[in-house]
Amino acid sequence: MSKVRLNITMSLDGYVAGPEQSLENPLGIGGQALHEWAFATRAFREAHGMDEIEAGPDEEHAVRIAENVGATIMGRNMFGPVRGEWGGTDWTGWWGDDPPYHTPVFVLTHHAREALELQGGTTFHFVTDGIEAALERATDAAGDRDVSIGGGAETAKQYLRAGLVDELDVHVAPLLLGSGARLFENVDVAPAGFECVRLVSSPAAAHFSYVRMPRA
Amino acid sequence: MSKVRLNITMSLDGYVAGPEQSLENPLGIGGQALHEWAFATRAFREAHGMDEIEAGPDEEHAVRIAENVGATIMGRNMFGPVRGEWGGTDWTGWWGDDPPYHTPVFVLTHHAREALELQGGTTFHFVTDGIEAALERATDAAGDRDVSIGGGAETAKQYLRAGLVDELDVHVAPLLLGSGARLFENVDVAPAGFECVRLVSSPAAAHFSYVRMPRA
Repeated sequence: MSKVRLNITMSLDGYVAGPEQSLENPLGIGGQALHEWAFATRAFREAHGMDEIEAGPDEEHAVRIAENVGATIMGRNMFGPVRGEWGGTDWTGWWGDDPPYHTPVFVLTHHAREALELQGGTTFHFVTDGIEAALERATDAAGDRDVSIGGGAETAKQYLRAGLVDELDVHVAPLLLGSGARLFENVDVAPAGFECVRLVSSPAAAHFSYVRMPRA
Repeated sequence: MSKVRLNITMSLDGYVAGPEQSLENPLGIGGQALHEWAFATRAFREAHGMDEIEAGPDEEHAVRIAENVGATIMGRNMFGPVRGEWGGTDWTGWWGDDPPYHTPVFVLTHHAREALELQGGTTFHFVTDGIEAALERATDAAGDRDVSIGGGAETAKQYLRAGLVDELDVHVAPLLLGSGARLFENVDVAPAGFECVRLVSSPAAAHFSYVRMPRA
């Protein structure tokens, strides 16, 4: 059955991005380092070829993030630094001509824009009628596969608050960013009934995996 | 050399105690479960004898918490539920006649009270002149051994803010408490220059160990 999955990396002190996000620092000051656990595994794969991957919790989680994903949802700030009306922007995302999604991506925004088809199967759709509408379209697009909630913090929190996340994977990097955008702020996740099904770590990250238990 | 060590357990969403702390729920609703990783190791030790401890990250950290500690500092709320003037209270802490500290314990409070000597080497001293004064007295009492900052959240944050913590161990339980007392709130730990020297986990907790780097 198709699931809604949220995969997000945060610092030990709770930040999913550092302060002062900008074109130069998409993840804020120091925020890029949050994802070193995943970069390291990708670099390893590119250097050594897929057959020679060394098994480990980081590699396993880096692979799982993209596995069986049929559609992605992300917030506008994760898509780019442009704010307000799109106007004549030629911004097509942070990821170049062939983004790593390879699925339809639904971008939450208050400002309409025509869909943007890039290479490799990634098409960005701009959704202006809210998180439920975006999830409906993403679920349709995903078919039997899962819907991945990308980020950033605000998008993740909106779906958590609405109780729409089935599986939650939080990757905790051993960083102390001190300030930035928090995940677990103004969101009470206790009522959702998430149960931890797995906790594993490498020196680069601890991976907490939760499944929302069906209500009795 | 004697060090100032802070050892604290928090939920993945950042709480070191649940909501509504009380005489019945010293750690707030759901807060007791934070410490299951440590309880499990103690129970195991009591049941099997010290020689038969199964090595593992939880056991190792449970042992390290008390190792080489010569004095402890805690906040008044960690000592007990009595607020305001002590009056004629006969409250002697949560831990019975023989508390697990076996060292002098300096309790931060705004209200003077005579020292309280219990069994097993634990004496509670009530310090009314602030965190630096408490640390000075604790350092004197500890001699060559370390000073352990107990908790709760407020006490931990005061010492973190003041840059007085040399070694920081954060144990993250895979719980989502949703509300309660937060550790990393209104405290920017980035400037302190903590470096992660170790990250290990069991299914019950991820243990993040930091050392404050000497300034250049």
